[in-house]
Order: sequence, then C-alpha cells, then structure tokens
Amino acid sequence: MSASAGTTAAGPVLHGAASREADRAGAREAILVPAPRLHRQLEALFTAWCGPAHATASADALVEADLMGIDSHGITLVTLYEELVAKSMIARDADIRVVQDLGAIAVLDAGGGFGHAPATRAMDLACERAAAFGVGAVAVRGSNHFGAAGVYALRAARAGMIGLVTSAVHAASIVPVFGRAPRLGTNPIAFAAPGADGAPFLLDIATSTIAIGKLKLAAREGRRLPDGWALDADGRPQHDPEAALRDRLMTPLGGSREMGGHKGYGLAAMVEVLSTLLAGASYAPLRDRGAPRYDVGHLCLALSPEAFRGPNAFGPDLDAFLACLRETPPAADAARVLAPGDPEHAMRARREREGIPIPRSLVAAVKAVAEARGAGFHLEDPDT
Amino acid sequence: MSASAGTTAAGPVLHGAASREADRAGAREAILVPAPRLHRQLEALFTAWCGPAHATASADALVEADLMGIDSHGITLVTLYEELVAKSMIARDADIRVVQDLGAIAVLDAGGGFGHAPATRAMDLACERAAAFGVGAVAVRGSNHFGAAGVYALRAARAGMIGLVTSAVHAASIVPVFGRAPRLGTNPIAFAAPGADGAPFLLDIATSTIAIGKLKLAAREGRRLPDGWALDADGRPQHDPEAALRDRLMTPLGGSREMGGHKGYGLAAMVEVLSTLLAGASYAPLRDRGAPRYDVGHLCLALSPEAFRGPNAFGPDLDAFLACLRETPPAADAARVLAPGDPEHAMRARREREGIPIPRSLVAAVKAVAEARGAGFHLEDPDT
Repeated sequence: MSASAGTTAAGPVLHGAASREADRAGAREAILVPAPRLHRQLEALFTAWCGPAHATASADALVEADLMGIDSHGITLVTLYEELVAKSMIARDADIRVVQDLGAIAVLDAGGGFGHAPATRAMDLACERAAAFGVGAVAVRGSNHFGAAGVYALRAARAGMIGLVTSAVHAASIVPVFGRAPRLGTNPIAFAAPGADGAPFLLDIATSTIAIGKLKLAAREGRRLPDGWALDADGRPQHDPEAALRDRLMTPLGGSREMGGHKGYGLAAMVEVLSTLLAGASYAPLRDRGAPRYDVGHLCLALSPEAFRGPNAFGPDLDAFLACLRETPPAADAARVLAPGDPEHAMRARREREGIPIPRSLVAAVKAVAEARGAGFHLEDPDT
Repeated sequence: MSASAGTTAAGPVLHGAASREADRAGAREAILVPAPRLHRQLEALFTAWCGPAHATASADALVEADLMGIDSHGITLVTLYEELVAKSMIARDADIRVVQDLGAIAVLDAGGGFGHAPATRAMDLACERAAAFGVGAVAVRGSNHFGAAGVYALRAARAGMIGLVTSAVHAASIVPVFGRAPRLGTNPIAFAAPGADGAPFLLDIATSTIAIGKLKLAAREGRRLPDGWALDADGRPQHDPEAALRDRLMTPLGGSREMGGHKGYGLAAMVEVLSTLLAGASYAPLRDRGAPRYDVGHLCLALSPEAFRGPNAFGPDLDAFLACLRETPPAADAARVLAPGDPEHAMRARREREGIPIPRSLVAAVKAVAEARGAGFHLEDPDT
C-alpha cells in the first residue's frame, strides 16, 4: 500500500502533512510497520549512534512524528542523523544539565547530544513550573535537531497544559525579505492546547513558505515552481525545482513582500530570538566555523489553563471553538474545513490501526545504516 | 507635506508600515502635528467618550502608533471609536479588576472599556512577574479594541523584557483555508526584545495576508487584486477591490493553501486560543448576539532575558543578530535589508522631529467628532 493512498483516506490534508508526505508519495512500494516495531528499530539505531542514555526519548519523538503523518520528521531522518553522527557533531550519552533555575524558568545545557531528550525534559519541566506558577518557560542550548516541534507541544497538551515550542536550526535557509542570502533556519513554531472531550488543538509549522519536501516533489514531477516558493542567487523567484533544491534559498511564510513575506521573516526572526538568544545558544550565521558542535537552541513554554480559568472551563471552550472552525461553510471547490490538528489526529488513528508506511527505498537505507553501525535491523521483524 | 513623501524619506518600508500608510498616501494635503498636541487632542476625545479614568492611557497608545508609522492604529481610529461609543459598546470610566492571580500569572477584567488601559496594565504586571519569576503572563477579558499590539510589546522591551502580545478582534474577517465564511479576526501578534546599544527588535503583524488599508489603496487606484489577498462568497480569489472591501473575506497569512495559507490560519487560531479562550473572553462567532459588550480578550507575556542569561548577555547578542540581518546582501532589485523594527524606529525619529502628518480630510473628521462630543479641538492649536 502506498503512503499516498493513506493520505487520501485520511481526508483532505491540511497542516503540512501533504508536503511531508511528498517523499513517500513517489515511492512505488511501502511496507506497513507497527509503531512498536518502528520504535525498536529507532532505539537500536540511536543506541548505536550515541549510547543508551537518551535512545528511548529520541525514538519516542520520531515514532510520534511518523504516527501523526509528519513523515519528514520520523524514520526518514535516519539518513540526516547518520550524516551528523559521521561528522562527529553529536555527543555520546550527552550530559543534560540545568544551568539556570529561577522561579518559573530554567535553562538546560543539552551537552551536545540530539535534541529529543533535552526538549522532552524541557517541556516536562515547563509543565511542572506552569502547574506551580501558572506559566513556565525552559530554554535549551548546546542541542541539535530535535525532530518535530509539535511532538513536545502535544506532550504539554496531554498533561493538561497549553504548550508553545520554538526551535532554531543548525543551518540558515530562509532569506530575509529584500535579501539574496539565507540568514534564518526554517525555524518552527508549534502550539498545542487541550480540549475536554475532543482532541487537542495542534499547530506545527516551519516559518518558511514551503517544506523542502515540496521542492523534491516538484523536481520529481518536473514541475515549474510558482513565484514565492524559493529564490535564485539574485533574490528573484526561482522556478527551477532542481536549482531550488541545490541552493536552498527559501522564502519566509508569505513569500514575496506583496504577499506578506515580511511577516514570515519577522516570525522566523522571533523564533531565533526565543530559541537561540534567550538560551545563549549559537546563531548559525555567526557561529565560529571551528566550533565542535552546532549548539542549537530551543524554547518550551507552558501555560496552565486551570490557573487562568479555574477547573473545567478552558477544555469545553476549546472543543466549541474547534467545532465552530470545522463547521465553517466550505469553499465551492472544497469538501470541508479542518481545525488545527485534525489531519494529524486522523492520521494517528489510521496508523495505530494499520501501521506506518515506509517506502522500500527507505527500508533499504535504514538497513544499510543499521549494518554499518552494528545495530539490529528490525523493520521487517515478524510482529510480536 | 504629504505623508507619502514622509514614507519615502524614511527609506524602504518593511513591517506593514507601507500598507498602514495607504489611507494617507492618497490624501492631497496633510498638516504636521507635534506628538504632544496630538496627545492633547486624543485625551480630550477619550475623556468625552468614556470619562477621564483611562483617557491618558488610550491617548498614549494611539500617539505611540502614529509616531511609529502604524497609521491605521493612531488618530485615524477616531471614526471607528466614535462608532463604537455611539453604539454604546464602550463603558465609561471602566473598572479594571484583577479577577485571578496566581504566582506568575493573572487575569484582568477590563470592565467593558477600551483596551488600551487594561493592556498597558497587563503588560506592566506581566513584566513585574517576569522580574520575580523569570516569566509572567497576564490575560485580559471584557475588553475592546486596544490599538496597535506592538505598543505593548515595545513597552516590555523598554522595561528590559521580551514582550509577546496577542489580541482577538470583535468581528471575524479571516476565512479558514478551504472555507468561505469568516471565523477569526485579523488577530495580531506583536513581539519585542531589548538590545544593549541598539533599538529593540519589534514585530507587529496581523495574521491575515494583508491589511484592509491595502484594499482601500487598490480600490482608489482601480487595481485588480492578486490571487491570495481576499475571497469571494464562494471562497474563490476575489479580484475586485470594491467587493473585497464590502465583504471583508480576508485570507490568512500565506493566502492560498499552496502558498502556506494553512500556516496563517493556524497562527490566527492560536492567537484566538491565547487571547480569548485563556482569558475567558467571548469568541466572536459564538458570542450571544444580545450581549451588551464585545468582551474582547488579549494576552501579554513577558520573559526576563536576565533571568535566562544573567546580566549583559542578551542585549549585545540581540544587537549582533539584528546587525547580521541588516548586512544580508540585498536582492538585485532592492536597496537593503531591514531588521524587524527598523522602519518603525526610523519613522519615530522623523516624526518626533517633524510632527505627525494628518490628512486634512481626517482633521475635518476629528473636528466634527470633537464638536459633536463637546470635546476641545486641538489639532490646529498653535504650538506651545
């Protein structure tokens, strides 16, 4: 079964899931892997890469992303992560330390490991502080790629908190409005809030106009890029998908100035302030080229709905709000309107039932990495 | 001197100021009013509208916006505010009360008055809490229009804090992706952060693709609207500026789904959660039509850079970050790249020196309102 069939059955796809599917939509063939088996595979790989200390947290984060259909941030990251480990950019069994602690805030130093474990710990700590003070904020420095930001925001919502997560990226790809060189990462913002009976509100977006996956899909289909997706070396619209993939000169959300690109630029810069500058991490364009690590920063912020509203008030209001969004009369050419998080929740229900589709080309790539690293290969294990 | 000349002389305009200028760019003739005189005029009007208790705070907020070139949120609001007062939507000498107070958070009830005074108080309280706990968050309910969100974010930055401000709006105009009816206000996000030697980072954006002012300008010029600015009653792109002005069916930032409109939709919805649901205010589409007030909500959040970084660390990093953005090589057709806040700071310097340009048509409208309300008319006072 192909992943694109899965996408269609889950209904119209809204929050980036369509673009995240791009890599898999082109795959001729995929196998369906149950989440526990995928977790076993990832835990084995992370243990081989950087020791057992944080392997479970890292595997958790990638499986969560794959369950929600955020395919660009699940098992597909294995090739990127193998590259980072091969370049010695990731510390083994990194020591995660609290380096600042004051009232409702804290700063963690991730010790140079992957970002999944420190971001998980940061959000849990932010939720603890929010339970005590109404709001909590925990910044992380000395970190690396942490997978999908939405995973940590959703973690807060499951704990009854509103979660806001931002992260910087170790390389710049977004070009400021009026510019022709990259100065900001795709700097994601994720936000989640708990309902009463319904599923949480969930937003997980890069502050670029499109995901890299959309460029790959356009390249595969030989399709001309529209204005506002990517830029050429002069800062003009890039229409060639191959050149766009090579140069990675992405526009901020909005695209051109006329279409509000200055807003996306400002949001990407805001994320950099919150993630990098507040944590004391390294801003990629100014990072010392000889530095042994990328020193990426994140921010996890939690707000307690109960502190603001008292018990049993916020959740029902959130449910009613999301229902009102879903009941928006659809446009002439659309089937229905979705609330933020609906596509991810629908995909999770489907993939928990049917398994996670992994293209055979990716299965082969994972197998090669596992063999090279002396990790077990589990994707084709018989179900246990 | 015309306002458009002022805009040109201030250099390329980035953060929405161009669109905010739209109303004035078409004015044949404007007078230049020093900020203190403009303040005197506004204070007189607010006192006449709703008593002396909060007139100074309201006048402060509008003068600040006009100084920064956020012209849609300065003296031009007099006609909208006169309408709201005439419809009895604004309480006189509203009682602003703290209705929830717990550790680092609080909730204010604005008592049905304008939003400027309660938002000012909310941000000051959030900054106090951030000084004590590292982070503070204060929600406001029972409020109304509060002017430009950036005014309150900048207030935090001047106090040495990072400020984040969101607000709902009393009427929905943003149409969710795939929909054909409005469900969200233009729900602004403002963010500011203090530098050491340089001016603060400042972002102040609506989560719609464009400001209403851009529609007005297009209508005046008889220009066809591009895809992605506004929608018709079927949810398809609206190209007629007059119809767009009448229907107010705005797209979320990004515009179409292809250009990332689902991201703007999600951000506008996030602002609604933070501003309305967290405060216990009324979500406009579900508000009881017989309610005597709009019951708008805001959120003011402050983070202490010193709590996270220790003394004298964050400010220099912010200055270096903004300098790096400004040094981005410009696109072939652009003069230079600006950092978030640069246009507003440049405009403030100019208008503090030269005065604030007010078109004669607006001067006449202000005079008519002042006379009808028995307030003094001061815009043409001799300088004192």
